[in-house]
Amino acid sequence: MSDAQDHKQKMQQVQAQHRKKVSEAVDPGRGLVLINTGKGKGKSSAAFGVVIRALGWGQKVAVVQFIKGKWKTGERRFFEERDLVTWHTMGEGFTWDTQDRDRDIAAATAAFDKARDLMASGDYDLVVLDEINIALRYEYLSVDAVIEGLKSRSDRTSVFLTGRDAPQALREYADLVTEMTEEKHPFQAGIKAQRGVDF
Amino acid sequence: MSDAQDHKQKMQQVQAQHRKKVSEAVDPGRGLVLINTGKGKGKSSAAFGVVIRALGWGQKVAVVQFIKGKWKTGERRFFEERDLVTWHTMGEGFTWDTQDRDRDIAAATAAFDKARDLMASGDYDLVVLDEINIALRYEYLSVDAVIEGLKSRSDRTSVFLTGRDAPQALREYADLVTEMTEEKHPFQAGIKAQRGVDF
Repeated sequence: MSDAQDHKQKMQQVQAQHRKKVSEAVDPGRGLVLINTGKGKGKSSAAFGVVIRALGWGQKVAVVQFIKGKWKTGERRFFEERDLVTWHTMGEGFTWDTQDRDRDIAAATAAFDKARDLMASGDYDLVVLDEINIALRYEYLSVDAVIEGLKSRSDRTSVFLTGRDAPQALREYADLVTEMTEEKHPFQAGIKAQRGVDF
Repeated sequence: MSDAQDHKQKMQQVQAQHRKKVSEAVDPGRGLVLINTGKGKGKSSAAFGVVIRALGWGQKVAVVQFIKGKWKTGERRFFEERDLVTWHTMGEGFTWDTQDRDRDIAAATAAFDKARDLMASGDYDLVVLDEINIALRYEYLSVDAVIEGLKSRSDRTSVFLTGRDAPQALREYADLVTEMTEEKHPFQAGIKAQRGVDF
């Protein structure tokens, strides 16, 4: 068999397998729970990429940021200027900037109250809880409360949770868990964070 | 020491370490080369999240899609409707749909010629080569040609390359490599791909 024929046969097999899997898959009739975790870059940016995808289909999106309050990021500038999504920021910045545990707990709790309302409202196709895993890791929020909030979401609503160290109970409840692993990072090579790339 | 004091001290240490690393980092004076690879979800969407970040700072962005030609994705709809980025699609769809190796090679080569022009032009802060690793994996492009193209990019331009199975030589040349690992995926549980989430 020629290389071209061999290639064609292989691709036909790949196509057939793919079609079979697609045809057997079912619609769950509810939004999904998705987690991006791990130490690697791309957890929040992948969630914002999915926001773009949802907006491209005319869907409604809300974002609650649990940690990056003070910092003005490119994504926040982009979405706020265009009024494309409902945006809510916890407003206290990175936890190592506040150094006040009680204030962090109060801020995280208030942000999650807001998140629960957004998820339950039925007004959104997608709600992003950005860096919520950090709030869980520092025990500013309990994982039980977060899972309760996810369970009371509207059937219409998918939820994307980001941040390193997602707790096990949350991983078990989720439909999708992606671990981002850092193989190589410019900051480790002494390269400064770049506007547009890193924030 | 009280819990609150203990927390404050820990956070001060984290803050000091973070500030030291930041103050020692240098600006490379050139755009970075970034790779998202691995089998997990989020490789392309993280690149599109970085596109949003760059646009939020008023930067100029181009995207060349090497594989998902025929498919109308939410991100493509979003960016094309708003004319926010220079968008170029290889136009042949997934390789298992064409089943013609010569046509795939010609299409990939033409797309990379376009990509090389965009990278060298000096007109862009960020160029995304979406799914180019797939074209490398099927040997539609040579890794040497791709690295040559990256080397001839403008100093102004960062390049984001996505797709599973990034070749080793490309990983070595890049500033950042993130591996996306699938811990749990709804498609494996028989759940259909969801508009807005998966495409």
